[in-house]
Amino acid sequence: MIKPRLFTPGPTGVPEEVLVEMARPMFHHRTARFKELFASVNDSLKRVLMTDRDVLTIAGSGTAAMEAAIACAVPRGRKVLVANGGKFGERWAKVARVYGLDVDEVELEWGTALAAETARAKLSGGGYGAVVTVHSETSTATACDLEAIAKVVAGTDAILIADCITSAGTLPLKMDDWGVDIVAAGSQKAFMLPPGLGFVAVSDKAWRAIDAVDAPGVYLDLKAYRKSIAANDTPYTAPVSLIRGLKVSLDMILAAGVETVWRRTALLAAAVRAAAEPMGMKVFSRRPSDSVTALLYPEGVDDDFRKRLERRYGCSIAGGQAHLKGKLCRISHMGYVDPLETIGLLAAMEYTLADLGVDVRPGAGVSAAMDVLKDWQ
Amino acid sequence: MIKPRLFTPGPTGVPEEVLVEMARPMFHHRTARFKELFASVNDSLKRVLMTDRDVLTIAGSGTAAMEAAIACAVPRGRKVLVANGGKFGERWAKVARVYGLDVDEVELEWGTALAAETARAKLSGGGYGAVVTVHSETSTATACDLEAIAKVVAGTDAILIADCITSAGTLPLKMDDWGVDIVAAGSQKAFMLPPGLGFVAVSDKAWRAIDAVDAPGVYLDLKAYRKSIAANDTPYTAPVSLIRGLKVSLDMILAAGVETVWRRTALLAAAVRAAAEPMGMKVFSRRPSDSVTALLYPEGVDDDFRKRLERRYGCSIAGGQAHLKGKLCRISHMGYVDPLETIGLLAAMEYTLADLGVDVRPGAGVSAAMDVLKDWQ
Repeated sequence: MIKPRLFTPGPTGVPEEVLVEMARPMFHHRTARFKELFASVNDSLKRVLMTDRDVLTIAGSGTAAMEAAIACAVPRGRKVLVANGGKFGERWAKVARVYGLDVDEVELEWGTALAAETARAKLSGGGYGAVVTVHSETSTATACDLEAIAKVVAGTDAILIADCITSAGTLPLKMDDWGVDIVAAGSQKAFMLPPGLGFVAVSDKAWRAIDAVDAPGVYLDLKAYRKSIAANDTPYTAPVSLIRGLKVSLDMILAAGVETVWRRTALLAAAVRAAAEPMGMKVFSRRPSDSVTALLYPEGVDDDFRKRLERRYGCSIAGGQAHLKGKLCRISHMGYVDPLETIGLLAAMEYTLADLGVDVRPGAGVSAAMDVLKDWQ
Repeated sequence: MIKPRLFTPGPTGVPEEVLVEMARPMFHHRTARFKELFASVNDSLKRVLMTDRDVLTIAGSGTAAMEAAIACAVPRGRKVLVANGGKFGERWAKVARVYGLDVDEVELEWGTALAAETARAKLSGGGYGAVVTVHSETSTATACDLEAIAKVVAGTDAILIADCITSAGTLPLKMDDWGVDIVAAGSQKAFMLPPGLGFVAVSDKAWRAIDAVDAPGVYLDLKAYRKSIAANDTPYTAPVSLIRGLKVSLDMILAAGVETVWRRTALLAAAVRAAAEPMGMKVFSRRPSDSVTALLYPEGVDDDFRKRLERRYGCSIAGGQAHLKGKLCRISHMGYVDPLETIGLLAAMEYTLADLGVDVRPGAGVSAAMDVLKDWQ
C-alpha cells in the first residue's frame, strides 16, 4: 500500500499519458507514419532547446549523446578543455582520453563549477579545439553559468560542448542566443520519458569541426544522423515507443511553455532549499542547480535515512556519490513533479529525521517550503 | 502538467497494480481459470468483512447490492425501519417503497446517525421485519454505531440490513461478531477498484428471511447468487476484468492487514479534522465517519473553492449535496490514499483559501495534520 514516488535526478516520473502512449501497439519505423511523427518531435525539440538547428536523436543514453559529440567534434591535434567538478565531468574527461584526445582537465572542487574567467584564461593560451562543460552537474547538484562560458568560447575558434542532460528543459538554456555549439540532452530528465534517448543539437561552427574529423566510429557518427534527419528519418532502428512518448511529453512541455517550466523548476528548488535549515540540513553546492538539490545530512545521519524514506513513505531520492556517499541526499525538481508532492516529500523527510533522533520539529521545513511555493503558477 | 488526484468518496484512486491487472487480455468466465480466481476473491472478501458466510458479488453498483438486500430479505407484511440521515438513507427508503414495503422512516437531522436506543424503542413496538441503516452516510460524512444497533436488532426477530458501502474496509466492521445480518458493499471505495461490483454478505437468519420471500425480480435475486457461488460461479456474466483487479486489491488489503487499514483510515481522518480549525473550516458531522470528512466552508467561500482546487492543483474532492450544496466539501480517506498526499491536499486547500481572501496562514492546517500523522505506520 506504499505509493512509489520518484524524486531521483533521472529517471524522473513519467506522466500517465506518456506511459499509455508508449503502451500502444508497435509500428514500423520505415514508414510515412513514423516520418510524420519524427518530424513533429524534431520540431518540438528545437523549440525546447531554443535553436534553429536540427536536434539529432540517438537511441541511447545521455552518455551516448555526449560521447558522439566529443568523439566527432573535437578537432584532432588540438587540446580539449574539460571541466571536472563531479562524476559527469570526470566521465567526459575519460571519454576524451579513450579517443586519444589531448585533454586539459580543470579539476574543480565538488560543489563549484567552471567559471567563465577560468575558461577565458585557459583559452587565451591558444591551441584549444573544444571546451567541454557540464551545465548542471548531477552528482553535486551544481550549475555553471553556461551563458557566460559560451560568450567566452564564442570569441575563439574552439567550440563549446555542453552536457545539458540535467539542464535542458529545466534550467534557462537558449542554445542559439547564447551561442552554445553542441547541446547534449537525455530523455529521462525534464523530457519526462524513460531513459533511452540521447539528443544532440549542433551549431554551424560545430558542424564545420565535425566535417573536418574522420568519424572514429559508426553508431555515434553524428554525420549519419544529420543525413537521415533531413528526411525525418533515423540512420539505425528508431526506438518507436519512446518517440511516441516523446511526442506526448513535448506537447505537454510546449503547452505549459518552456519558460514556465523553468520557473516552476526553480520554485521547487527554492522551496527545498528553504526547508533545509529548519530540517537541520545544509545545501551542499556553492552554486546550486535548480534541477536537483543536494542536502547534507545532519550529524549522525547516514544513508539509512534514504532507505527508511523509501521503505516507509515510498519516496525514492538519490544519495551522494564517491566521497559524498552517505553524506548527502539529492532531490530532483525536474519534469513531472509538483508542489504538492514536494511538500509531501519534505513531510516524509521530517518524520524520518525525527525517527532517527534528529532534533527537528516536523512541519517547520514544510512551512518554509510552503511559503516559497505559494507563488506557484 | 497538473497531476490528477482523487479524494472523492468513491470512486477512489485505483492502484497501478490493479489498473495494469485489469488491462490484461480478456478470458471467458465459464472456465476453470475463472472459478479458481473467483474462489480466491470470495475467500478474501470473507476475511475483509470478517464473516464465515459467502460474500455474493453482483455486477452492479452498491445500489444494486442494497436493492437486492431490501427487495429479497424484508419479510412481506412486516414493517421495515429505515434510518434516513442523508442522501443514501433517503434512497433506501425510496427503494423499499418501490417494492411496496411498509416503511417506517426515521428522519434524522443531517450530521447525526441512528442511535441504538432509537432502534430499540421502535422495535419494542413489534411488527418489524427489518432495519435498514447506513453505517457511514457519505453525504453527511457521518457514521452510526453499527455494533450497538446490531446488538439491539439481534435481540428481535427482525434482520439488520447495513449499507456498508463507504465503511467496509475502512471503519471497524465485524459482521459475524457484531451480528449484522446483511452487509452491502461496493468496489469503488476501500476496495480500490473502479465502480462496477456490489457485494452482499448474508447471515443464516437473513437467509431464512430471504427463503420466505418470493423474489420480486431476476437479476437482483440473491438466491441465484447463493446457488452459483457454491460452485465458485456467477449466475450471470461475470465482470472478468474487475474480478481480476479485485484479486490484486484484496491481496494488498490482506497483506497490510484489515485492522491496519482501519487504523490508517482513522488517522488520515483525524489529521484532516485537526487541520480544519486552523484553515477556518468546521467539521460538519456531529458523529464524523473516518471514511470521509465533510468540512464546512468559511464565510464567503462557496464551491468555486473546489473548482480552483482541481484546476490549479489537480485535487478532486466532493461538494455538499441537497441543502448542503455550496456549503461544504467532502474529502475521502478510503483506499489508496496516504499521509503524504493528504498533506499535499491540505497545502493546496490552504493556498486556495488564501487565494479566495480567507484569513489563513498557509502551513497552519498542514502542521496540525502533520502532528497527527507522525503516528502513521
